[in-house]
Amino acid sequence: MTADSDSKPNVFSTDIEVRWGDLDLFNHVNNVAYFRYLEEARMRWMTEHRLAESGAEALPVMVKAGVTFLKPVLYPSTLRVTTHVTEIGGRSVSLEHKIFDAATPDICYAEGYVKLVWIIPSTGKSTPLPQSVHTALGQ
Amino acid sequence: MTADSDSKPNVFSTDIEVRWGDLDLFNHVNNVAYFRYLEEARMRWMTEHRLAESGAEALPVMVKAGVTFLKPVLYPSTLRVTTHVTEIGGRSVSLEHKIFDAATPDICYAEGYVKLVWIIPSTGKSTPLPQSVHTALGQ
Amino acid sequence: MTADSDSKPNVFSTDIEVRWGDLDLFNHVNNVAYFRYLEEARMRWMTEHRLAESGAEALPVMVKAGVTFLKPVLYPSTLRVTTHVTEIGGRSVSLEHKIFDAATPDICYAEGYVKLVWIIPSTGKSTPLPQSVHTALGQ
Amino acid sequence: MTADSDSKPNVFSTDIEVRWGDLDLFNHVNNVAYFRYLEEARMRWMTEHRLAESGAEALPVMVKAGVTFLKPVLYPSTLRVTTHVTEIGGRSVSLEHKIFDAATPDICYAEGYVKLVWIIPSTGKSTPLPQSVHTALGQ
Repeated sequence: MTADSDSKPNVFSTDIEVRWGDLDLFNHVNNVAYFRYLEEARMRWMTEHRLAESGAEALPVMVKAGVTFLKPVLYPSTLRVTTHVTEIGGRSVSLEHKIFDAATPDICYAEGYVKLVWIIPSTGKSTPLPQSVHTALGQ
Repeated sequence: MTADSDSKPNVFSTDIEVRWGDLDLFNHVNNVAYFRYLEEARMRWMTEHRLAESGAEALPVMVKAGVTFLKPVLYPSTLRVTTHVTEIGGRSVSLEHKIFDAATPDICYAEGYVKLVWIIPSTGKSTPLPQSVHTALGQ
Repeated sequence: MTADSDSKPNVFSTDIEVRWGDLDLFNHVNNVAYFRYLEEARMRWMTEHRLAESGAEALPVMVKAGVTFLKPVLYPSTLRVTTHVTEIGGRSVSLEHKIFDAATPDICYAEGYVKLVWIIPSTGKSTPLPQSVHTALGQ
Repeated sequence: MTADSDSKPNVFSTDIEVRWGDLDLFNHVNNVAYFRYLEEARMRWMTEHRLAESGAEALPVMVKAGVTFLKPVLYPSTLRVTTHVTEIGGRSVSLEHKIFDAATPDICYAEGYVKLVWIIPSTGKSTPLPQSVHTALGQ
C-alpha cells in the first residue's frame, strides 16, 4: 500500500501530530487514538467541503467505523491521514481512510472505514442526503 | 438483539459507567468512546481469564476493530458490555462485543468486533498462541 | 487525610472506576485522567443539586483547576471522589475535591480544587449567581 | 499578558493543534484537554533537553499541576504553548506554561504550572536531581 492515493483527485489528505498522551503502556499509539485521528481527518474534510454547514436541515451521524492496524505508530510522529469517498448512497456517505507516517508516506500504518447517515436532529430519523451534500461532493 | 447472550456460558459481561467526558458536542457519547468501552471490557475479560499473564512469552496486539452504532448513548448511563470469543486461530483470537444499557438490557446500542494476534514483543512478529491462552480459553 | 470528610453534611461523595485507558506508559493513571475524575464528580454533584438546570439563564464555566498528586493510582481500582463547597462568591463557587481508593478510603491519593464562574452564554460575561444556585447550595 | 515571554532565552515554545475531539458539548475546548496540551509541551521540552534520557537512574513524576483558564479555545485552532523553568529544587523542577493562539500570540488563553519530582522507579522514593538534569537545565 503506498500513498499514491494521495494524488488521486478525490482524496483529501491532512497531517495530524501524534500526542504523547495517545500512547498506552506498551509505548505505541493506543488503538482508540486511531479513531480520534479518523475523526479529526473527517472533520477537516467536512470543513473543506462545507459539509458541516448542512447541519440546520440534517446532520451526519456515524453508523459504522473500523480500523485494520498494520504497523505500530510511535511517538513522536506526524501522521498523514487520507479520506476518500467510496460510496454515496441515498441517505449515507461511506469513507475510506488510510494512515501514513508523513515522514515515510509510502508505508501504510492503518486503514479505516466509516459510514455516515444523515438524520433529522429533532427526530433522530434518517433522511435523504441534502442537496448541499450532493453539491459539496461534486454530484 | 437481546441480552440473552448474557446468559450463554462463554459470554463475559461487565458494566461500565459512561463519563460526562465521553460526550461530544452533539450531547451523545462520541464514537471514539465506544472503542474505549470495548478496550475496558476486553481488559476485564483478559484479567478474568488470566490472559494478560501470558505477557512474558507473548503479547496480544490488535489487528482489527470495528463498531456498528445502533442507538445513541446518553449521559448518565451504565453500559453492559459483553465479550464473546468467536474464533480461536493458530495465532489469533477474534472477539465479538455487544453494548447494552444496563438498565434496559434488552436493547442493543452497539455491536463490535476485535481481532487480536499474539506477537513476540522483542521482534514484533506473530507467534502461535501460547498454551496458557488455549488453556485459559478452555481448549 | 482520611475519608472522615465523607460523613460531613456538605460533602458529596461518588465512586468512579478507573479505566485501563487512563493509564499511561508508566503503568499508573496519567495525571490528565485525574481532571477527568474531578469533572465526573462535579457533574454528578451538579446533577444531585440540580445546578445544571440553571443553564437557561446562566452557565458555570471553569476559571481554575488544580491537583496535588499524593500517591499513584493503579488499575484496576475504584476511586471515591469527594466534592466540598469551600466558597460561594457573588459570581463564583469554589470546590475542593479529594480522591480516595474506595477499597481503602483512609488514604488520600490526590487533592484538587476548582473555581467556577457563572456567565451569560450569549455574551460570555460573568453574572451574579442565579438564585437557583443559591437555593441549591442551601443559602 | 503577551507572548513576549516567547523570546526570553529560557522559554521553550511549541505549537499544538487543537483536535475536534478536545471540544465538549459547550463547543469549546474542555478543561481536561488543557492538561493534555501542557503534557505534550512538557514532553517536547523534555525531549529538547534530553531530560527523558535520565530515566535509567531516576524518573520525573508530577506532584502538582494547575491551570487558570482565561479565554475559551475554539476549533479549529493551533495553540502556542510555552514552557519556562521557574524553580530548580534539590529534588524537583517547577514549570510555568502559557497557552496562546498561534495566530494571535499576543493574547494568553491560559496559564499553568507543574511541579515534577524525581524518583527512583523501583522504590517510588524521591531522589536528588540527577546531574544529567542539572546539566540539561544549564546548571
